[in-house]
Amino acid sequence: MKKLVTLILASAAATLSVPAMAQFAKPEDAIKYRQSSLFVMQQNFARVAAMAAGRVPFDAKVAAESAEVAAYMSKLPWAAFGDGTDKGAPTKAKAEIWTDKAKFNEYAEKMQGDMNKLNAAAKTGNLDSIKAAVGAVGGSCKTCHDAFRS
Amino acid sequence: MKKLVTLILASAAATLSVPAMAQFAKPEDAIKYRQSSLFVMQQNFARVAAMAAGRVPFDAKVAAESAEVAAYMSKLPWAAFGDGTDKGAPTKAKAEIWTDKAKFNEYAEKMQGDMNKLNAAAKTGNLDSIKAAVGAVGGSCKTCHDAFRS
Repeated sequence: MKKLVTLILASAAATLSVPAMAQFAKPEDAIKYRQSSLFVMQQNFARVAAMAAGRVPFDAKVAAESAEVAAYMSKLPWAAFGDGTDKGAPTKAKAEIWTDKAKFNEYAEKMQGDMNKLNAAAKTGNLDSIKAAVGAVGGSCKTCHDAFRS
Repeated sequence: MKKLVTLILASAAATLSVPAMAQFAKPEDAIKYRQSSLFVMQQNFARVAAMAAGRVPFDAKVAAESAEVAAYMSKLPWAAFGDGTDKGAPTKAKAEIWTDKAKFNEYAEKMQGDMNKLNAAAKTGNLDSIKAAVGAVGGSCKTCHDAFRS
């Protein structure tokens, strides 16, 4: 039963994070797509992180909007890491993304989950909750970059 | 009364399309942000447009997912056209964006509205409705590019 629940949850998570739209006309389109979506995500996350760190004044409305966009964007890059997209344009993506897909997908899921928690925290407007959630996202970004980005 | 309704609708549209998060650390970040969000939008729109044109087989699920992402992305670029972001990185943005903001904003709103209609059409799964909505989006893209993109 526990195994079945795990399978169902894993299936639901895969549905959430890997849309069916995995087709790109050219590898360079896929590379640009994942870089673009990660950049939009990062810019929104960085805005909330700067508030969490006290580098800019806390604005609950901006934090909530930015966290929501970051959480949405966190779902998009993964469809653009298909086979054959390891080259074709400048990319920092390591070969390990395609040789250790299970680990890469695990890290990608972890980050999306952490980003969803940040989105939830930002909606409450509680700065301490936001700080904790920002820390978790930062950690999952770093873990994945250390392993899969050169 | 009609004027009041118009004002309220215009205000709602502005709220939808121009989030408060207009701050970027550097002009080049803003330029990259609008280019990135427009690219992610375009890739998703192009996938639906290819189906509408019969260049790829119609897949209702992929069309609906792609149109939804395109509609979401259509809201994001505009916050990154702030004053002082006309240069700082390679950009095709014409000076008229900042000298004729009313017209630029009008075109931006029009495109978002058309993209929302495409999203609604794609959810129905009706290919004829999708074709009509794709045509409208294509038209609003072209109108804005002709005026404001070099």
